[in-house]
Amino acid sequence: MMQICAANPALPFCGQLEDGQHHLMVRVYYADTDFSGVVYHGRYLEFLERGRTEFLRLSDMHHHLMLEAEEGQAFAWIVRRMTLDFTAPARIDDMLRVETAIAQIKPARILMTQRILREDRLLLGAHVEVALINRDGRPRRLPLAVIQSFAKK
Amino acid sequence: MMQICAANPALPFCGQLEDGQHHLMVRVYYADTDFSGVVYHGRYLEFLERGRTEFLRLSDMHHHLMLEAEEGQAFAWIVRRMTLDFTAPARIDDMLRVETAIAQIKPARILMTQRILREDRLLLGAHVEVALINRDGRPRRLPLAVIQSFAKK
Amino acid sequence: MMQICAANPALPFCGQLEDGQHHLMVRVYYADTDFSGVVYHGRYLEFLERGRTEFLRLSDMHHHLMLEAEEGQAFAWIVRRMTLDFTAPARIDDMLRVETAIAQIKPARILMTQRILREDRLLLGAHVEVALINRDGRPRRLPLAVIQSFAKK
Amino acid sequence: MMQICAANPALPFCGQLEDGQHHLMVRVYYADTDFSGVVYHGRYLEFLERGRTEFLRLSDMHHHLMLEAEEGQAFAWIVRRMTLDFTAPARIDDMLRVETAIAQIKPARILMTQRILREDRLLLGAHVEVALINRDGRPRRLPLAVIQSFAKK
Repeated sequence: MMQICAANPALPFCGQLEDGQHHLMVRVYYADTDFSGVVYHGRYLEFLERGRTEFLRLSDMHHHLMLEAEEGQAFAWIVRRMTLDFTAPARIDDMLRVETAIAQIKPARILMTQRILREDRLLLGAHVEVALINRDGRPRRLPLAVIQSFAKK
Repeated sequence: MMQICAANPALPFCGQLEDGQHHLMVRVYYADTDFSGVVYHGRYLEFLERGRTEFLRLSDMHHHLMLEAEEGQAFAWIVRRMTLDFTAPARIDDMLRVETAIAQIKPARILMTQRILREDRLLLGAHVEVALINRDGRPRRLPLAVIQSFAKK
Repeated sequence: MMQICAANPALPFCGQLEDGQHHLMVRVYYADTDFSGVVYHGRYLEFLERGRTEFLRLSDMHHHLMLEAEEGQAFAWIVRRMTLDFTAPARIDDMLRVETAIAQIKPARILMTQRILREDRLLLGAHVEVALINRDGRPRRLPLAVIQSFAKK
Repeated sequence: MMQICAANPALPFCGQLEDGQHHLMVRVYYADTDFSGVVYHGRYLEFLERGRTEFLRLSDMHHHLMLEAEEGQAFAWIVRRMTLDFTAPARIDDMLRVETAIAQIKPARILMTQRILREDRLLLGAHVEVALINRDGRPRRLPLAVIQSFAKK
């Protein structure tokens, strides 16, 4: 099941990856809103997570990590640092576009730039630093092939 | 924005409505799981909500209600009653299918049958009773056209 | 940390267990509400989970399970079945009382009755069937001491 | 109900406000965790919201705003900007302490510093900028009495 986007990257659930920029559409439902009438600020972090996850799934990085996972090296992504600028609210039924790109790759961390938009209007800008951990919760270095593939671009 | 599926029902975010049965695909992300390794039981209610919402959006019912909303009759759906049978767990990265159908329409309530599956495996069966409320929180009757259109089927 | 209520059951976070009936107070925050102005129906499941967890923590059952956990028998609770009756809405800033009691204990399942109230007003009634699973996700029987201690009452 | 802490600030749900520093205890439940075994990064925003809400409820600010609310000036808090440093993970059953203090008050915004700790260990540090909006979603200035009361300290 994990490989569904690797096998068929045209599926809408996978978003689209072009020139290193990833786009994913997400819908706003009741569960995402709060009584003030707009999306609860904490729920945007779930939209951002979806964008990062589908981005990584479509990128080379995912394939390298999957190879290691098959060799028993389980892993999970964790967020180390986030800066969030909320510029305009999203509302029930909105279709939002989550944009994700890599800003920098370090040996054990990836810095990503993300934006959430409704049509052309920017709703949220974010800088996110993620790291890889092993199943025991300890940080681990990114596969060398990942770092090298990014360095070439 | 609300009308995006009414105008283009082929969009994947809208799911598919055939012979009164609605299908919507949803992906499981980190935010949906808990430390036991599987999807948190309360998060399935969000998947069910997405299925009901897209079903109603593609159905005639939505158009009748939208007409009224334009005339100033704001409304929201509320859940009155739910029965949930959890038969197997969903996991991170799973693509799930949410199936939604109407079992019965009463003057002020709709009874829906919903299922969540991963490929052919049933994970959750649900009976859900929803009602319409006005903006002031009071229950309201369904539009007559809605009740009639269902009675014909 | 897990033992904080076992050591000091008077702490408010633990709720109160009297004659087999458990009471826990929970506050409604922004994150619990949706744009219709009231608590999102799926969030009540989190309030119910808190009630069941603190109930079990204060009961003999927890001590028996903790002993086993120390012997390497990790476990988690899962929900098998739920019936939910939503009778009135909760709102932002409300202080709610979650009531939990055991209705029946079977070799591998516990049936609980739960209610959520605001002062004397019933907002939600629930029947919940929970089971124990091992770390590998397989169901396991309840400790015999647990079944016996309940049978005596 | 909103006034429960104003009337009885010793209640544990209100936390404690001393010398401008607010402390609130929160428990980690299943719903807060994800499959990696620790608290989902987005759920910390709910803990932070609880801390800010109880802080404001115990402070003079709340009383000034409540007076205005009674005069028909409805309001809600929104988050404009957040910086989050995740330094260590929280786990199921943990009792966490949310610390909240005001760093700066501007005519239409409040800058808060927040920390989440488990005993003496810092898990998360946050800078949060909040603003007040009217019911129609437009930003509004803080009451003059609020700005003055802070300036004196």
